[in-house]
Amino acid sequence: MLTHCVRDVLSGRLSKSKTSQCCMTLALQHTRRYSSTSPSEDLDPLRTFLELCANRYYISPGQTNTELFQRGRSCSYGPLGMELKRNLLEQWWRSVTRSKSQVFGINTLSSRKDTATGGLRIVESEHVKQILEQQELSREQLVQKVQMLLQRSPPVRTDLLQGALEEFVPSLELVNRKLPFGLAETGLCFQPSDGSGCSAEVTQTSLVWFCSPRTSSQWLDHWTRQRLKWWRKFALSPSDFSSSDVPEEELEEAASRGVRIVYSFPWGQEPLETLWSRGNTELLHTHEGAHSTLQCRNGRKTVPHVVSLTGNMDRGVMAFLSNSLLLLKNVDGKQKLQQRQVLKLHPVLAPVKVALDLGRGATMELRQVCEGLLQEFMEAEISAWPGYLDTQSTSMEQLTAKYDEMGVLFTAMISENTLESGLLQVRSRDTTIKETMHISEIKNFVSRYISAADNV
Amino acid sequence: MLTHCVRDVLSGRLSKSKTSQCCMTLALQHTRRYSSTSPSEDLDPLRTFLELCANRYYISPGQTNTELFQRGRSCSYGPLGMELKRNLLEQWWRSVTRSKSQVFGINTLSSRKDTATGGLRIVESEHVKQILEQQELSREQLVQKVQMLLQRSPPVRTDLLQGALEEFVPSLELVNRKLPFGLAETGLCFQPSDGSGCSAEVTQTSLVWFCSPRTSSQWLDHWTRQRLKWWRKFALSPSDFSSSDVPEEELEEAASRGVRIVYSFPWGQEPLETLWSRGNTELLHTHEGAHSTLQCRNGRKTVPHVVSLTGNMDRGVMAFLSNSLLLLKNVDGKQKLQQRQVLKLHPVLAPVKVALDLGRGATMELRQVCEGLLQEFMEAEISAWPGYLDTQSTSMEQLTAKYDEMGVLFTAMISENTLESGLLQVRSRDTTIKETMHISEIKNFVSRYISAADNV
Repeated sequence: MLTHCVRDVLSGRLSKSKTSQCCMTLALQHTRRYSSTSPSEDLDPLRTFLELCANRYYISPGQTNTELFQRGRSCSYGPLGMELKRNLLEQWWRSVTRSKSQVFGINTLSSRKDTATGGLRIVESEHVKQILEQQELSREQLVQKVQMLLQRSPPVRTDLLQGALEEFVPSLELVNRKLPFGLAETGLCFQPSDGSGCSAEVTQTSLVWFCSPRTSSQWLDHWTRQRLKWWRKFALSPSDFSSSDVPEEELEEAASRGVRIVYSFPWGQEPLETLWSRGNTELLHTHEGAHSTLQCRNGRKTVPHVVSLTGNMDRGVMAFLSNSLLLLKNVDGKQKLQQRQVLKLHPVLAPVKVALDLGRGATMELRQVCEGLLQEFMEAEISAWPGYLDTQSTSMEQLTAKYDEMGVLFTAMISENTLESGLLQVRSRDTTIKETMHISEIKNFVSRYISAADNV
Repeated sequence: MLTHCVRDVLSGRLSKSKTSQCCMTLALQHTRRYSSTSPSEDLDPLRTFLELCANRYYISPGQTNTELFQRGRSCSYGPLGMELKRNLLEQWWRSVTRSKSQVFGINTLSSRKDTATGGLRIVESEHVKQILEQQELSREQLVQKVQMLLQRSPPVRTDLLQGALEEFVPSLELVNRKLPFGLAETGLCFQPSDGSGCSAEVTQTSLVWFCSPRTSSQWLDHWTRQRLKWWRKFALSPSDFSSSDVPEEELEEAASRGVRIVYSFPWGQEPLETLWSRGNTELLHTHEGAHSTLQCRNGRKTVPHVVSLTGNMDRGVMAFLSNSLLLLKNVDGKQKLQQRQVLKLHPVLAPVKVALDLGRGATMELRQVCEGLLQEFMEAEISAWPGYLDTQSTSMEQLTAKYDEMGVLFTAMISENTLESGLLQVRSRDTTIKETMHISEIKNFVSRYISAADNV
């Protein structure tokens, strides 16, 4: 069971001195990381990474099982992971629906025509048990009853393609029968069971692009470039994201060409998004070969070809987490070795943009200032972390270490000085520089910083 | 099958003269509507309403089966329905996570502990069939094999409660063990099969609120007020949304009190959101009675009580659609009876804020202006409709009738005049008044209109 799996892994936390064996970015140095570690040191960077994710509210503590991740299973997210996934899905949505005026969002259901699902069904185990327990049934009657139950059970899907194919006809009027156009959707899909009984849920993104047959190959190239550019835009180490053609022997039945966008995880490459040029067989099959209703006005009357883009956003979240983790070593003024782990998530993706904390001063008044500021950030839709609620006394170093691991972009310290002069200190995750600014400026400062990063 | 059900319903569209029997709002006049219709006229307002939803891209054309809606099944959405649902979910999220600083978002998976699911599982029908077809198996072996398969099948859930209960412990550190706080989540859930083989997917919202035992009843009242206010905020006819206590005999096992927020659909009342004060039995059960890890610092050390809020956002979409449809009769200057159907969705919820269309003039140049304007709206995250892509000539009346039925807030006509002087004409859905304004003003005009409506 997922939640039971490896709470014990967490208990054996690695000391900081051991982690120091890896330097610079985890992402850049996969091979080096592994090779530089002697077995006696029992250093598992992947485990360290997952523990950081669990400690810093990205994934649930029960989810640090390295094996599960390597099998590509998704996980339960804590508040920060949830926000990261939300931001990632929002960025995907924007990039796909706003790149072309002819992309429309849809929201479909699993349907009986989901032939690609291999027939995943939802059954009530109680109902099956009731049948199996009926002693008076003969073997044949039993088989028949279970089959009937299965047939009446609602389907679930493994991808969002079929829904878009079914929406093709009603969408034609919308685009005035003109090609190309696309239907975009994000939603929960299910992977066939791997026998572990673990959850098989994946949040997928799907763009189904309808175009004239002679342009489908060009469109596949167009979307591959667009998608790869998108993944790399948010990466600390863009070269870990790459694309490669699907070898002929691995092509899906209907597809003439396929491209995978992959990420180099510490345990190997995993596909994040797959693009297929799939012809029009499935479209014709979905609409039972009704050629005339499918035709578009594109020079000659043709049944369009389909290019599909399917992304796994749970794996996307893990790719960006793994890609963003930086291990830094510094030698300070006293010649002491200092280390910090920083989750350098892209400003647009970072789940917390600014943390608000208390410095020295009259606590009651300072808290009121913090609450006002928090409200201001919320209204501007900039996610802020109410660090001032935490009354446990921690040193400034511990606090910045924690926020760096959380990937918090800025830390604002509200202190006595703020009450007197309106000035507060703002520390940047990326430069570690502390700036003094007026309380009335910080919202716009953070907001400008994020949009600047977005428009790069 | 859902998509096959009633395409034929669509073919028998009602003439406009028949619809004239209903006046003012559908929502306000359910009883009158039904009683004023003689049976010979075969007027079914619900069917008319669903057809409008299908014709105007809110729901898929195959989904106008009135019976399915009355059974509370969800449906496949077209582009406009999808955007409406997206807006609704976004508003829910904002209202819940921003009303209190102590609400955190999570994203959990179905888990084995989902006892409340009644044991819904995903099975691969192929696997079951393979077992059933093995002639060499005895009856006992068969039963055993099917049971084993069931046990190893991944679970799916009927609500999001269990996920939040499991996230309670890791979240405690985050709030410094202080009550109250809440965990919010939206996601896909499944309803047990009704035997029709129809999809059983529902998008639910969930807030699980942890508070001290003595305040749980007050919090239930607080959230009931907050939620009801939220539903009514977006309604054309707020009194159709109401709340009522759950009768004692219908209380869930663990709950001491319950409240339902219901909407009066034409076919009767249906719950949109249910609030339970559920004690701490389930929380203790989830964490296997580990009292000490559950205790919070709230005066005395106590295991918190749970107040849960569960909403059905698919039903929410239908409630707002049904609530927003207005049938208007006007007598024009020539004493002719004019009618229009307007989908008066709240400006914040309306999926299309502004439609861009071509008036008279040089088409090529005008289209370029439209495309520039569309881009500007997209960048400001104001959803615009590229009406200028539609090259079929329609009269101005037909166009406004269509946009009113789509619930489009404003229609901007770009014409010769725009090329000469930069002026365009903007028609408002709600006032039907046409205003002339400069092209540089329209974005801010629409944006101000929406925020004004949001802050009422």
